[in-house]
Amino acid sequence: MIVVLKQNPNEAQLASLMDWLAEKQIDVHKSVGTSHTILGLVGDTAAIDTDLISALDIVEDVKRVQEPYKHANRKFHPDPTIIPVGNTTIGGGSLTLMAGPCSVESEEQIVAIAKQVKASGATILRGGAYKPRTSPYSFQGMGTRGLELLKVAREETGLPIVTEIMDASQLPEFADVDLIQVGARNMQNFDLLKRLGRQEKPVLLKRGLCATYEEWLMSAEYIMAGGNHNVILCERGIRTFETYTRNTLDIGAVPVLRRLTHIPIIIDPSHAAGKAWLVPQTAPAAVTAGADGLIIEVHNDPAHAVCDGPQSIRPESFDALAKHLYALHDFLASHPAPTLV
Amino acid sequence: MIVVLKQNPNEAQLASLMDWLAEKQIDVHKSVGTSHTILGLVGDTAAIDTDLISALDIVEDVKRVQEPYKHANRKFHPDPTIIPVGNTTIGGGSLTLMAGPCSVESEEQIVAIAKQVKASGATILRGGAYKPRTSPYSFQGMGTRGLELLKVAREETGLPIVTEIMDASQLPEFADVDLIQVGARNMQNFDLLKRLGRQEKPVLLKRGLCATYEEWLMSAEYIMAGGNHNVILCERGIRTFETYTRNTLDIGAVPVLRRLTHIPIIIDPSHAAGKAWLVPQTAPAAVTAGADGLIIEVHNDPAHAVCDGPQSIRPESFDALAKHLYALHDFLASHPAPTLV
Amino acid sequence: MIVVLKQNPNEAQLASLMDWLAEKQIDVHKSVGTSHTILGLVGDTAAIDTDLISALDIVEDVKRVQEPYKHANRKFHPDPTIIPVGNTTIGGGSLTLMAGPCSVESEEQIVAIAKQVKASGATILRGGAYKPRTSPYSFQGMGTRGLELLKVAREETGLPIVTEIMDASQLPEFADVDLIQVGARNMQNFDLLKRLGRQEKPVLLKRGLCATYEEWLMSAEYIMAGGNHNVILCERGIRTFETYTRNTLDIGAVPVLRRLTHIPIIIDPSHAAGKAWLVPQTAPAAVTAGADGLIIEVHNDPAHAVCDGPQSIRPESFDALAKHLYALHDFLASHPAPTLV
Amino acid sequence: MIVVLKQNPNEAQLASLMDWLAEKQIDVHKSVGTSHTILGLVGDTAAIDTDLISALDIVEDVKRVQEPYKHANRKFHPDPTIIPVGNTTIGGGSLTLMAGPCSVESEEQIVAIAKQVKASGATILRGGAYKPRTSPYSFQGMGTRGLELLKVAREETGLPIVTEIMDASQLPEFADVDLIQVGARNMQNFDLLKRLGRQEKPVLLKRGLCATYEEWLMSAEYIMAGGNHNVILCERGIRTFETYTRNTLDIGAVPVLRRLTHIPIIIDPSHAAGKAWLVPQTAPAAVTAGADGLIIEVHNDPAHAVCDGPQSIRPESFDALAKHLYALHDFLASHPAPTLV
Repeated sequence: MIVVLKQNPNEAQLASLMDWLAEKQIDVHKSVGTSHTILGLVGDTAAIDTDLISALDIVEDVKRVQEPYKHANRKFHPDPTIIPVGNTTIGGGSLTLMAGPCSVESEEQIVAIAKQVKASGATILRGGAYKPRTSPYSFQGMGTRGLELLKVAREETGLPIVTEIMDASQLPEFADVDLIQVGARNMQNFDLLKRLGRQEKPVLLKRGLCATYEEWLMSAEYIMAGGNHNVILCERGIRTFETYTRNTLDIGAVPVLRRLTHIPIIIDPSHAAGKAWLVPQTAPAAVTAGADGLIIEVHNDPAHAVCDGPQSIRPESFDALAKHLYALHDFLASHPAPTLV
Repeated sequence: MIVVLKQNPNEAQLASLMDWLAEKQIDVHKSVGTSHTILGLVGDTAAIDTDLISALDIVEDVKRVQEPYKHANRKFHPDPTIIPVGNTTIGGGSLTLMAGPCSVESEEQIVAIAKQVKASGATILRGGAYKPRTSPYSFQGMGTRGLELLKVAREETGLPIVTEIMDASQLPEFADVDLIQVGARNMQNFDLLKRLGRQEKPVLLKRGLCATYEEWLMSAEYIMAGGNHNVILCERGIRTFETYTRNTLDIGAVPVLRRLTHIPIIIDPSHAAGKAWLVPQTAPAAVTAGADGLIIEVHNDPAHAVCDGPQSIRPESFDALAKHLYALHDFLASHPAPTLV
Repeated sequence: MIVVLKQNPNEAQLASLMDWLAEKQIDVHKSVGTSHTILGLVGDTAAIDTDLISALDIVEDVKRVQEPYKHANRKFHPDPTIIPVGNTTIGGGSLTLMAGPCSVESEEQIVAIAKQVKASGATILRGGAYKPRTSPYSFQGMGTRGLELLKVAREETGLPIVTEIMDASQLPEFADVDLIQVGARNMQNFDLLKRLGRQEKPVLLKRGLCATYEEWLMSAEYIMAGGNHNVILCERGIRTFETYTRNTLDIGAVPVLRRLTHIPIIIDPSHAAGKAWLVPQTAPAAVTAGADGLIIEVHNDPAHAVCDGPQSIRPESFDALAKHLYALHDFLASHPAPTLV
Repeated sequence: MIVVLKQNPNEAQLASLMDWLAEKQIDVHKSVGTSHTILGLVGDTAAIDTDLISALDIVEDVKRVQEPYKHANRKFHPDPTIIPVGNTTIGGGSLTLMAGPCSVESEEQIVAIAKQVKASGATILRGGAYKPRTSPYSFQGMGTRGLELLKVAREETGLPIVTEIMDASQLPEFADVDLIQVGARNMQNFDLLKRLGRQEKPVLLKRGLCATYEEWLMSAEYIMAGGNHNVILCERGIRTFETYTRNTLDIGAVPVLRRLTHIPIIIDPSHAAGKAWLVPQTAPAAVTAGADGLIIEVHNDPAHAVCDGPQSIRPESFDALAKHLYALHDFLASHPAPTLV
């Protein structure tokens, strides 16, 4: 950690800061310049609240050198983590395809789609039972009944299920869900994250609409700090000034996160775009960038889906896309991107 | 609502759309152009899910003409709403000052600050018991004990209290809080909003870091649709590309919201900037823009505050600022901004 | 075009608007609703300035239905355009690799790099003679001498050259440049665009840091409206809230632009990231998304490059990357992404 | 400047860096930690290109401590600068009102508006002769004839004139303009900035749509480094995710810039909002925040303005607004915002 002092800092205050740091067993290296004095802090600085130091009258600026996350940090866990989800795993070089409708609408619908996406190569079934909708007047999901129907579809196909939790009070209902999704709007619902850290089911943590990589990893850290290391990150588009697409898909997040963390990274091309026709173009790009998997909305009747129809593709399209993605993944396995020399 | 059709739409699909709209008692006016056909939909279109129409193959675009919020809409409630909070009110032309520390730290601290800010003219005491912190390793607030100490400070001063709720499960503890704050990160925690709509305490709804005005008003609508019309909006800075300040304070939100809604609007200049020295400059600008009040962080020892010290001002500074703000508010009451001719 | 009127519009003003539109041979279809009246305008609405209509007291909102660009619009030119650049072409299914240093530094440097990137498969040499630098105290490029050295390198290798123009007054010097680059900061330097439209050299138009797709295409339209249809678009990262990378590379821009325009689309993965190690990850993703080419910074001694060293890769790395990109492009040629059914 | 080294840096490379810094007479203070080594660089670091250091293999990060601008830096020029413009001045505690139409349309129009705004208290006349328009098909301004008409209006009223330059080649025509405006889209047109630095007319430098404070000040530095210290900054709204207003007016920019620089700061409330009805609300807030002046669009017939009608106010409204702003400015002169204790 680096502390930049103001010009001519009050000596008594500076001595008090030095004592406080010494107490915390932090070594301080001082560089005195003409206009600024710089303190280099060395030791376990992760435990120091930078806000406390910033607030001092004598301090102009405080800059962290080390990442504030530990469990999620690749520096301390160089090998990629592989997360078991039901009868499958995510991470470690394989390509996971999760597919299914935005919302569960009926047993007939979810079972039919589950069978189709399984036949096409999906290994996890997605489907919303509780839906976060901007408007209180929009369909809010089937709730408990939706969860039951997902389990019926799992029974019928063997596919593990992933579905979104909206509130910690729903956790008992999610005890039998294979992968619990935290939506973008709840990425910093810290109480929910803490509760998810105290149970064992793996968590698919979507990136908040305007969350930085570091904030996102800190949210993963909340779950991991509680003891649950089964976290998977999911990029689903960030909010920018561009309004042609619903969000801007940050495909570069994949290699960045690969460097910063050992946690698997999934891309959601459907929500990012909000336009189904973009999915067959962006999904392969995500695979090429090194994503561990994709989560794709598939609906057998997008024009009558009760929500998010515009971004769903039909099972036939998913079938062709899945074949394309697996072929591309195979090609890349034998033709890896070069590393820099 | 306006529906733009693709060129040469399939006739059968168009007929099916027309029938579906007729069923919903929507009148359709058709304008046929050389490259596009436009449908003007007239009737109670708020109940129509635009996503359903967007998903149709024949549709190029759907545009809403009417705002999707009703209870919050000024068109249907032209008079400003005045919200009772404990022994005071917010809105309707008065200026409300809420002040207090970021976090409750001790009885001595919160009572001392409460007395000071009351003497300076604050009418509501703020203080955090549960704190949303980016890092799981940062101080998370005193919790239940913090709430108790806030009540002690209320007892001592008579000031109503405002404090942040983090999760619906904390609601019983908040039964005796005068104004329940929903933080920026929970602005779209829809389960929490629904629960707050089913109780009667007024709610201070902060704007999400990247929430549009419409999304923010839709979150207010969630609370109001549940039956609780005691909602107050609080702008606290939005996330932009600028990193010099923590966030960019959107002072223009005040007149915009004044036009869109009848709900009171509060400005938080402390969190927006993250720099205490900006508060005495931006707070008066917010009053001038017409804000119904301000929520300001005040700490008797900012350099040793357990959180957010850099943005807190001392009680002496708050005293001078409050006098300035009230004088300015009086001036503006007798010198209102002109309306356009 | 759609005009939404306010409630109870002044009849005289409405009549005056109707007359004005009739004069311009625009047909108007009126839909009267309970709260709004909607006018559907049909005819050559591209020539109507929406601002004029928005300014009317009786108008609440104006929405365009048709894109405001014509020459750049794929609707009117469904086939992809292939642009000749020196002895090569860009677009139409081939993959173009442009490579070279950020700045030309010496004859030895530029010739050596040119030979290396040509041997690796690059077909166009990039190199900066005039450099847009945020600080007046940073190296501003070699200028005229830099242009001369680029031509020497072209002579030695046969590679056409692409380099950035900063001001219209430099045009005579660029008469012999094969592809003239307009930088992100000049994307809306309309005088420069007009001048480039009145000459014949192809133009590589970079996207502004916060330009929407439509604004970018309108800048292309400026050049094309002048008569020069040899325009190539280049996405180089947009400005977002994320600060870990210099900019956020919008790979989704490729399929979006492919749908909106017939103009070739190039990706610059070097400037987007500002980190060399990201280039081998994002460049293949861009190829997969369907980019017509890439422009990549290559330096034989990045640690001593006079500018932008952190994002340059070495010739050896470029060699491996180029092989990878061509192999991937070949694979995709025989395994195209599916289209939706 | 602070250099953070990677773990176990190559010794030879480190020695080479130390030698290079010593040559430049930079003192280096080294802090060795368990995971990182930090170098504190002390001396005239403004002349060091951080990119060169970032590019080194052994370097993880480089952070500037000192601002990269000098002439514009308030640290070196604590007193506010007062800029003479024709027969008036800008800065130093006075309030400057610039007013006039978006575009000059006719002698009758510009002279009439000039007389009206002068009578209302404006001290500078604004008016566009050359207009930056997103579309090549929109009205581009009257050009030379527009400049002549502005001078006629100056003759008639005595008001100095401010108008926008689009390209350095127009400079001879601007020799007799009192204040030369650089538009947001040209804020980083470095050739234009350099040319403006080599002449003496004052420059009104608008903030780019997504320019940081530092980039904006660096653009001012370009002009000042050339010898022309007559620079005035103008905030006109930044681009954010919010689309209800055209841009988001950053009123907080005023106190921030006041701290960073001695240059006067003007606010343009008209372009920021794109909605005339917001101007009477945001303009007073800007004055309260400490702006040195405002530039406001006034048109005697906004509904028939040839451009930007929706954001223009009528002369009668400007008259009421100007009175309000001067009264507010007087009030604030006798009731200054408190400074922190």
